[in-house]
Amino acid sequence: DEGKHVFVLKTAKGTRDYNPKQMAIREKVFNIIISCFKRHGAETIDSPVFELKETLTGKYGEDSKLIYDLKDQGGELLSLRYDLTVPFARYLAMNKITNIKRYHIAKVYRRDNPAMTRGRYREFYQCDFDIAGQYDAMIPDAECLKIVYEILNELDLGDFRIKMAWEDVKKEMVNEKGLSEDVADRIGEYVSMQGGQDLAERLLQDPKLSQNKQACAGLTDMKLLFSYLELFQVTDKVVFDLSLARGLDYYTGVIYEAILSQTIPALVSTPAEQNGADEAGVSVGSVAGGGRYDGLVGMFDPKGRKVPCVGVSIGIERIFSIMEQKASSEKVRTTETQVLVASAQKNLLEERLKLTNALWNEGIKAEVLYKKNPKLLSQLQHCEETGIPLVAILGEQELKDGVVKLRNVVSREEVDVPRADLVDEIKKRTL
Amino acid sequence: DEGKHVFVLKTAKGTRDYNPKQMAIREKVFNIIISCFKRHGAETIDSPVFELKETLTGKYGEDSKLIYDLKDQGGELLSLRYDLTVPFARYLAMNKITNIKRYHIAKVYRRDNPAMTRGRYREFYQCDFDIAGQYDAMIPDAECLKIVYEILNELDLGDFRIKMAWEDVKKEMVNEKGLSEDVADRIGEYVSMQGGQDLAERLLQDPKLSQNKQACAGLTDMKLLFSYLELFQVTDKVVFDLSLARGLDYYTGVIYEAILSQTIPALVSTPAEQNGADEAGVSVGSVAGGGRYDGLVGMFDPKGRKVPCVGVSIGIERIFSIMEQKASSEKVRTTETQVLVASAQKNLLEERLKLTNALWNEGIKAEVLYKKNPKLLSQLQHCEETGIPLVAILGEQELKDGVVKLRNVVSREEVDVPRADLVDEIKKRTL
Repeated sequence: DEGKHVFVLKTAKGTRDYNPKQMAIREKVFNIIISCFKRHGAETIDSPVFELKETLTGKYGEDSKLIYDLKDQGGELLSLRYDLTVPFARYLAMNKITNIKRYHIAKVYRRDNPAMTRGRYREFYQCDFDIAGQYDAMIPDAECLKIVYEILNELDLGDFRIKMAWEDVKKEMVNEKGLSEDVADRIGEYVSMQGGQDLAERLLQDPKLSQNKQACAGLTDMKLLFSYLELFQVTDKVVFDLSLARGLDYYTGVIYEAILSQTIPALVSTPAEQNGADEAGVSVGSVAGGGRYDGLVGMFDPKGRKVPCVGVSIGIERIFSIMEQKASSEKVRTTETQVLVASAQKNLLEERLKLTNALWNEGIKAEVLYKKNPKLLSQLQHCEETGIPLVAILGEQELKDGVVKLRNVVSREEVDVPRADLVDEIKKRTL
Repeated sequence: DEGKHVFVLKTAKGTRDYNPKQMAIREKVFNIIISCFKRHGAETIDSPVFELKETLTGKYGEDSKLIYDLKDQGGELLSLRYDLTVPFARYLAMNKITNIKRYHIAKVYRRDNPAMTRGRYREFYQCDFDIAGQYDAMIPDAECLKIVYEILNELDLGDFRIKMAWEDVKKEMVNEKGLSEDVADRIGEYVSMQGGQDLAERLLQDPKLSQNKQACAGLTDMKLLFSYLELFQVTDKVVFDLSLARGLDYYTGVIYEAILSQTIPALVSTPAEQNGADEAGVSVGSVAGGGRYDGLVGMFDPKGRKVPCVGVSIGIERIFSIMEQKASSEKVRTTETQVLVASAQKNLLEERLKLTNALWNEGIKAEVLYKKNPKLLSQLQHCEETGIPLVAILGEQELKDGVVKLRNVVSREEVDVPRADLVDEIKKRTL
């Protein structure tokens, strides 16, 4: 008795299925993002969902405890990927690639405390664009910010700000470039006041700062970045914000995060998140982030050879949540069917299948109900439920006359179309 | 010293990265397949990469030992999905869905003996189209075969045969419909001779078989299927073949497999596979397979309610292998960039960035080298290497004249285009 084989009917904690409506929204979002990446000349790569455990070791600090390990079933010790950046660095080092502009959209895994109503899952998409290579300063960094700007504009999520953090630049200057802490703080003070190119200019004229070679170099970089951002027409959205910090260890330069201005009801913070960041240290409303990480690839290279990288990650799950919520009261089409081949009379299944077949062969997206003698009403209902705009109705008379009755589902207008013109007529009406 | 952090630079056994060229081929294959699924009115869904372990238990017989389990890190016991069919059945039962036509393209995991040159991996794509629902007999089954036919034609993989197996129908008749073994064998004998509608007709006229109600019903179904396949114009490729068997337990009706006629060198069988099937019981050259599984969803339903299903799975990894091999000597573009913004003179970085920005804003796929003063030769080389068809060249004179020199990379022909006409000109030349 099969009735006895009953299982717990659920998905694993922190994960979800995507139903057809969610998939239609996901596809729309991906299309906008991928179009942007392609407009900027990016290639794409893919990597396995699991890596050797040691590949991930030592890359995520504290958060390493959130990595999913596979059971030891003999053979290698494996873990599910935690992000797409470490596999990317492994890929570059393994294939000795020193420059590439690529995007990678795939799921990553974290044994985190899920908060699914706010778009935080244990299995979630990352959507990364990175530029690897030794180039003239700040040009690729500026392109990454341009990409964030374009994508958030096109997704139409309302106003946003791209906040750049100074903290890591400061850290870099202090630790690597030998800038004294008080000079760095002084830069920080200035920068926290307001942000922009003129500010960097003013700082460069500060007598104390301008005496320090490293400070000058850093400020010159910032000025340069802003000048490129000006050329890319994105400065209206970009500000410095010292309060920002990104969780990961591997950043070595400017870091940034894009925040939506509007509060989305379902994304409202819990009390624990009142200070603007949730448990994972990511700001509520953050929908993109990234930065420069010049040291990561070198960690995989036997000789430690560095490949400078800068990238951006689009917070696609939050974007899905927002889009889903916006679409919650709307009807979203989940198929692209142009026409349903139907009949009001009995015994016309063969004729319906024949016409459907002809339409498929001519590239028309067509459906037919899998019933010998469906009622016309149920055929029309199927169109209304799924948004099919046209019905091609066959009857004895139409077959005799060599025509098909083409009905517009919304307007209910009907017109007899000669069989030879049917494909063109359907294309014309469903453009 | 970062040089000390050296790791084994490899992907997990049986897995691989996809480089940009492989991704370009993968995208092309997916586009053809997804277009076909959409032409047939399918929706798409997605499910998590891991399921509760118990969801997979008892579905794969012997092969269960190939399932990847996750380590018990506290919480639920999880396993990586082994195929897309069981998660689909779980999804239907969990959401009480009784009819849907959906496709699902995603990676699945098997701790199998990899044979990567022949396209057999431990992580590999499955690409499934299924029709669930109680419909009039054989109509959805015929559509699945039509889909296999369309996809294999459009992928242009050479001649192929779709072989339908009788064995499971026989088993079904014997076990479920009470047909005696000798009558079933007799059907088998006939059917193994040759296949087609006329054969089913002849069998129906056999006095012994026609006395048996169940045999008549089965043969009537087969006859019906063939009549629909005739309407769908696919009978030239469809034959019965008793030697076929699909590995999985859950099939309950007609099963089928599509086999390429041509032997692809890299897919040549090893000695162990000489009998036409490799270690996994899958025929060499098999590029699609499927069948009817009416019992699976009921295994997840607390009351055992059945949802009849029929589907097809495209053997996408073998198709990738074949396409890769065909493309191994060809250049495949990995970006879609239409134009590179370049300069032959120094100090024009800002002008280059400004023009690139304008082109992006107008929807043109454009690149610019990340160098202050790149040589014209290296800019042209970048186009030749990556297949960018056009270069927009800026110089002092062009800027003064308000024009851009547009160069065709292949023909080397150059023409001065007024700035205002540039976008249209690029679109016209890269259609």
